[in-house]
Amino acid sequence: MPPTKAPDSSRRSDRSRRAIHDAALALVAEVGYRRTTIEGIAARAGVGKQTIYRWWPSKAAVLMDAFLDLAGRTAEEAGTGPGDGEEPPAADPPGGGAPGFPDTGDLAADLKAVLRATVDELNDPVLEAVTRALTAEGIVDAKLGDEFVRKLLDPQLALYVTRLRAAQEAGHVRADVEPRVALELLVGPLMHRWLLRTLPLTHAYADAVVDHAVGGLAPRP
Amino acid sequence: MPPTKAPDSSRRSDRSRRAIHDAALALVAEVGYRRTTIEGIAARAGVGKQTIYRWWPSKAAVLMDAFLDLAGRTAEEAGTGPGDGEEPPAADPPGGGAPGFPDTGDLAADLKAVLRATVDELNDPVLEAVTRALTAEGIVDAKLGDEFVRKLLDPQLALYVTRLRAAQEAGHVRADVEPRVALELLVGPLMHRWLLRTLPLTHAYADAVVDHAVGGLAPRP
Repeated sequence: MPPTKAPDSSRRSDRSRRAIHDAALALVAEVGYRRTTIEGIAARAGVGKQTIYRWWPSKAAVLMDAFLDLAGRTAEEAGTGPGDGEEPPAADPPGGGAPGFPDTGDLAADLKAVLRATVDELNDPVLEAVTRALTAEGIVDAKLGDEFVRKLLDPQLALYVTRLRAAQEAGHVRADVEPRVALELLVGPLMHRWLLRTLPLTHAYADAVVDHAVGGLAPRP
Repeated sequence: MPPTKAPDSSRRSDRSRRAIHDAALALVAEVGYRRTTIEGIAARAGVGKQTIYRWWPSKAAVLMDAFLDLAGRTAEEAGTGPGDGEEPPAADPPGGGAPGFPDTGDLAADLKAVLRATVDELNDPVLEAVTRALTAEGIVDAKLGDEFVRKLLDPQLALYVTRLRAAQEAGHVRADVEPRVALELLVGPLMHRWLLRTLPLTHAYADAVVDHAVGGLAPRP
């Protein structure tokens, strides 16, 4: 929804949009996805609910934009995320050369950098509350879960696919490995430990997962 | 809660207990964990709510027993689960020799058998609804999540640890691999794909995850 009006109006729109994002994220973290309403978001953001309806077709759409905005800001502040600058990582076009996903030629090192940044994001208290709320809702609501996966998760997973294909071309990953399976050996363990809180989610854990997974994907000697 | 009364009373208790389990599972699948109440379970099971309070201290405790009961029955019917006979798998004492978890000496084959059975359980429509509802609730409710992990998940994960330690002793897994990390390379990808519904959860996927993971855990030649 990039505003295309006069500069003053544009600045006002940006401020309102940010206020709506913040209100939506705060409400979901506090009361959960189901009890968050457009009315509640509008009241908290200090805007009329028609403003929200003008820009977004649904509550889920507001939350998705808010989440992308927050993830982009968090990655930017940490200076570690796969995104760079203003653009949140998931907004990068999938398959478009994997901007932001490192390719130093050392697959294990690149994956550790990305997974450590993911660990930091998942351990960030603000991101954590909203990510948990949205993930939990998507688990029981197939339609919403599907929307979040297509719009938020798949673009990020596409970056892994691109990096893994490059590793296959470089001979670091076997040609018979399916990248969509291989990436789940990396992100699956992190999400499992984080979602179920079985054990602490640390950089050392991310490193061990990468070492084991990359070992399993490498060409057999 | 094994009844220690006369045979007739014991049979009645068993029937009531099973009715309460079934009612609890049906309610959670229909209306979610939060809106399931002891009163609702009692009404649906056709028992007084005092009967439930006499046997269980909380709603979570009823659900946990009901879930164990259902998982045990499902595994029994399929004839594939890690449990055998009447005893549900998670009720096996952790570290007690991993009863039910196969050890044929072929680590990959044993893990494929277990993960394929897990795929079948996760794809079972009755088990799926209640597992999703409880997992989603545990994701946002740390106290409940912790209780489910300690009582339901950890005993199952302990079976993997035992099997992986045996593989280390047999020289099939490197001695420096931490079994608690290694097992997440196996169960993490399955849960990730199932919870987020990114792609279909199949036996072929379970096999590929095992092949990649076992390759990564094996001694370096």
